[in-house]
Amino acid sequence: MLAVDAVEAAKSGHPGMPMGMADIAEALWRRHLRHNPANPDWPGRDRFVLSNGHGSMLLYGLLHLTGYDLPMDELRRFRQLGSRTPGHPEHGLTPGVETTTGPLGQGIANAVGMALAERLLGAEFNRPGHRIVDHRTFCFVGDGCLMEGISHEACSLAGTLGLEKLVLFYDDNGISIDGAVSGWFADDTPRRFEAYGWRVIRGVDGHDTHALDGAIAGALEPCGRPTLVCCRTEIGHGSPAMAGTPEAHGAPLGAAEVAATRAALGWTAAPFDMPPEVRAAWDARGRGAAAEAEWQAGFDAYAATHPQLAAEFLRRLRGDLPDGFAAAADAWIAAVADRAEPMATRKASQQAIGVLAGLLPELLGGSADLTGSTLTDWPGSGGRHLHYGVREFAMAAIMNGMALHGGLIPFGGTFLVFSDYARNGLRLSALMGLRVIHVFTHDGIGLGEDGPTHQPVEQAASLRLIPNLDVWRPCDALETAVAWRAAVERTGGPSALLLSRQGLPAQSGATRARDAARGGYVLADDGDPRLVLIATGSEVQIAMEARRLLAGRGIAARVVSMPCCEVFARQDADWRCAVLPDGVPRLAVEAGATGLWRTYVGLEGDVVGLDRFGESAPAGDLYRHFGITAEAVAERARRLHPAHSSPT
Amino acid sequence: MLAVDAVEAAKSGHPGMPMGMADIAEALWRRHLRHNPANPDWPGRDRFVLSNGHGSMLLYGLLHLTGYDLPMDELRRFRQLGSRTPGHPEHGLTPGVETTTGPLGQGIANAVGMALAERLLGAEFNRPGHRIVDHRTFCFVGDGCLMEGISHEACSLAGTLGLEKLVLFYDDNGISIDGAVSGWFADDTPRRFEAYGWRVIRGVDGHDTHALDGAIAGALEPCGRPTLVCCRTEIGHGSPAMAGTPEAHGAPLGAAEVAATRAALGWTAAPFDMPPEVRAAWDARGRGAAAEAEWQAGFDAYAATHPQLAAEFLRRLRGDLPDGFAAAADAWIAAVADRAEPMATRKASQQAIGVLAGLLPELLGGSADLTGSTLTDWPGSGGRHLHYGVREFAMAAIMNGMALHGGLIPFGGTFLVFSDYARNGLRLSALMGLRVIHVFTHDGIGLGEDGPTHQPVEQAASLRLIPNLDVWRPCDALETAVAWRAAVERTGGPSALLLSRQGLPAQSGATRARDAARGGYVLADDGDPRLVLIATGSEVQIAMEARRLLAGRGIAARVVSMPCCEVFARQDADWRCAVLPDGVPRLAVEAGATGLWRTYVGLEGDVVGLDRFGESAPAGDLYRHFGITAEAVAERARRLHPAHSSPT
Repeated sequence: MLAVDAVEAAKSGHPGMPMGMADIAEALWRRHLRHNPANPDWPGRDRFVLSNGHGSMLLYGLLHLTGYDLPMDELRRFRQLGSRTPGHPEHGLTPGVETTTGPLGQGIANAVGMALAERLLGAEFNRPGHRIVDHRTFCFVGDGCLMEGISHEACSLAGTLGLEKLVLFYDDNGISIDGAVSGWFADDTPRRFEAYGWRVIRGVDGHDTHALDGAIAGALEPCGRPTLVCCRTEIGHGSPAMAGTPEAHGAPLGAAEVAATRAALGWTAAPFDMPPEVRAAWDARGRGAAAEAEWQAGFDAYAATHPQLAAEFLRRLRGDLPDGFAAAADAWIAAVADRAEPMATRKASQQAIGVLAGLLPELLGGSADLTGSTLTDWPGSGGRHLHYGVREFAMAAIMNGMALHGGLIPFGGTFLVFSDYARNGLRLSALMGLRVIHVFTHDGIGLGEDGPTHQPVEQAASLRLIPNLDVWRPCDALETAVAWRAAVERTGGPSALLLSRQGLPAQSGATRARDAARGGYVLADDGDPRLVLIATGSEVQIAMEARRLLAGRGIAARVVSMPCCEVFARQDADWRCAVLPDGVPRLAVEAGATGLWRTYVGLEGDVVGLDRFGESAPAGDLYRHFGITAEAVAERARRLHPAHSSPT
Repeated sequence: MLAVDAVEAAKSGHPGMPMGMADIAEALWRRHLRHNPANPDWPGRDRFVLSNGHGSMLLYGLLHLTGYDLPMDELRRFRQLGSRTPGHPEHGLTPGVETTTGPLGQGIANAVGMALAERLLGAEFNRPGHRIVDHRTFCFVGDGCLMEGISHEACSLAGTLGLEKLVLFYDDNGISIDGAVSGWFADDTPRRFEAYGWRVIRGVDGHDTHALDGAIAGALEPCGRPTLVCCRTEIGHGSPAMAGTPEAHGAPLGAAEVAATRAALGWTAAPFDMPPEVRAAWDARGRGAAAEAEWQAGFDAYAATHPQLAAEFLRRLRGDLPDGFAAAADAWIAAVADRAEPMATRKASQQAIGVLAGLLPELLGGSADLTGSTLTDWPGSGGRHLHYGVREFAMAAIMNGMALHGGLIPFGGTFLVFSDYARNGLRLSALMGLRVIHVFTHDGIGLGEDGPTHQPVEQAASLRLIPNLDVWRPCDALETAVAWRAAVERTGGPSALLLSRQGLPAQSGATRARDAARGGYVLADDGDPRLVLIATGSEVQIAMEARRLLAGRGIAARVVSMPCCEVFARQDADWRCAVLPDGVPRLAVEAGATGLWRTYVGLEGDVVGLDRFGESAPAGDLYRHFGITAEAVAERARRLHPAHSSPT
């Protein structure tokens, strides 16, 4: 009724799912879920994910009733500006919301990531007699989640990995927005999950408390496999006129039907009025405090026996990097600068990973079946490198789940063009501000023969459009190291590293290690530039060569390397103006979509790039074919030069 | 050996799959596939899709050997600039390549779309005694395709729809790029497909010609369900040292191993040298011509009995719009202009669809389980509207398959933010130049309470970055009609229509119907503007109100409505300069990412937009909260006005 009344007050929202899953939630949250409302960050808590996030009011009701810091006034303000009860659950905004959901299917993959993090951390930190990492991950899913492709990717992998502490509750109500699902979703879902190697508990009456308790108890029995509990439910359960119909899904029931529902359920309390006996029956604070105290006692014993492990465990969950990291990183980056080795930036990335993995035990690698191409593994990576299979979207969302769980800094690799497949997962990591690192190699036409299906053209620009995502495109081994360091040090959001397949020369400059960390900097200059060439990644070498050609014609050009536009934009105005002085014409070079570079070069500048799809040919042929050469850059830059321009 | 030798010559490519699936291909192409190499466009042909597109050389070999216009010289130039044998198969470049593949899993969905188109057209055009539409769709898939989420979406829907003329061949070789798949892909795939309602032919030896022939014959038996043929194969079959290993997947075997493979297979011919007896045994031109002649005789009989249907069928396959369409569309758009009704553009889109569906029987609608929200259905739509379920990516790729098949103009709807899920499908439609129409509603913060997970911010700009995709964001019912007309008339590529959830006023202007079709035009002006306000969609009304506020301050501002930047960019310079005169400061307004608008306003102009994620609240509150208001636009425009600026 809380959900019904809040949707009614907001004049928008989704009552059907909360009404349909309320009985399941009651059984799980009142008698099985281990959590402490007073401390939503308690490491030992079970995780709960609402993958069908449009049912947010169910979760807000559960959080409110069990005693989280979510007062009734917030529920009254459901879906209003500045409330902690937004239309879909948002992690970081509402205590107890473990992940942001709404885009269907991704919550499942987040839950897989949380369960995987639990297992990995348990293997790393638990000791005989001390199980400090030992909790469940529960996830509610609807038909929509199960139709989405990411549910296949995530659940297939979860089955292969045998994540036995993961339990999904399937809200099998036979209805999706368009109506009865039989016309478009006729899967035998239990059989599908058995094909993934899951334990399936079939045919549970989702409105029978006793049956639910039995099913949940069954799901908690160890079996080496994740569990799907299939609950037959009725959407909008309790509404005399709308139960079992798509009309209950996504709109207020209306005053008359709300009254009829009250009567049918025998609920006499006014909207947002909670009878004390109900409140008392739901209050989980006492049980939660006791559970945490028990866990804490266990942890104290662990800390007494294994003080270093315990301290490390707490550091990892805080997300702090180890003492001495900064100094070690300084030394490493200085060494990379000294070596000045030419190499593909994907190779430089692999070397960076090797160093960072030694410094950061929380670093957890992986790749979507392109390990040897994206070079995400390192010597001795062993259990710290995951084979996600050809599952880019699930990889992104599983990494989000691991970052949400805490204790790990996940990174994963695929080809840049396939960032398309994972795009909404990147968006959610940016929205939640998670430390997740995407290694995107084969970052342009330089990959050559694989052709236009594999050559990213619009992807770099398109990733830069996602708010709160830092997009790095380093030009050599040194910038790659700087980018990697920035990505692991960044606590407020994800980073994407765009890396070359092909070898690149090492650039030079005494202060580059420091300068590159500012996102954009002067790479080459003779003072008093008449032109600024801005370039990223594999095109920096082209800009440098163009500069030499221009010098031969008596035109002094500056080259600005811009490995990360977002970091550069966060620098103070002094830095930005010193790098890009007002009044000097600018030309940008990047082998991709040109439009966004107008934010730097304006209408009077120029961009050498590629606003069409690529072709299949050796890389050198393609650069020449598309006119992305030092000669072309020099020629077009020359036309920008004030001496050449006609007066305006 | 053709594949082995071509990869060797190119020094890159994928020999493993062609070697592993050659026996399957031999059985299918030599004894079952109905096609005519002399006429790749024969409507009656079976469709063949190589979803594991990295095995392109297998397909090129088959096309060459059976007699398509693909000479051996093209095979010698595999993966070279300008060849017709690119790294991955490209539709439109190579005769006989039915679709562009490489991004894994999408070929399956293309095949589902082709099989669905065949069924829909058969139901529409076949008559008793005349089965002019009656062919199969065959598709090769690998482990990678089956790990991708889109394989779930597409195959689940294909099972529900019972597409019995669809046959998938699973290259079950147990190897993906990272090695033996057992570590990351342990699905019981036959069981999974049975859960989808498919017929599964299990355990076929993919190197036993007799077994393959039997399996294919079985797959052709009618049963009301699609068929999966599971073929146990060995990647790199024939290579003594590399067969069955991931090393065979994606790199040349090397000269020594090529020689060893030649010896092992008893193949004595030189590279690219084809013994005449082999060539003769493969030549399918005679059989193909006979098959087409037989079909043509049937079609002639059909045309004699049903001349109008036959003419309509041929028109539909040519992709021509009906005679009289232009005049009818002119009248319809004039009527929309006259009515000048305020409404949400999603509603205007629904009305447009209703009109167009009456004019264009080839128009085929659908939605990813948001029919009532995206308003993609129309009165009497019946069998011409598909429920795709919550499967955005598959919807996009299935539409691509239908457009490739021919005879239909598919459109499909979801929320704009979920274009993220389908993004690579849009990319491939743009790369192939297919007439596919994406209806993306709820196109900004104006959707209100559903919050940041559902509010697109970067999506409009990000879609504009995809080459060859026309992105329309109309401001009212008239522009929506113009956009729809442009989308159905466009034969060279896809269009995306970005539509509002909320109501919008009708703008006015006598020549708007004609002007809007040019992508950008002057909506309001008093001559001699001192400022130009550029806006799209729901923000046009804000620009218009800002113009009034500026007029009150004595500043003459022009409002340019820019429903489609891509179409505007294709206009002649006269039009573009007349709309956006040089030297007049510009300000763009769009409730989304601002960066790309610098291509219009430059560095000296301004953009009122949103470079952060939205929030959950009523729409009006959000516009005020984020400062996207007429007052804010007027104030920021005023600062751009030359009288206000300091001299530069």
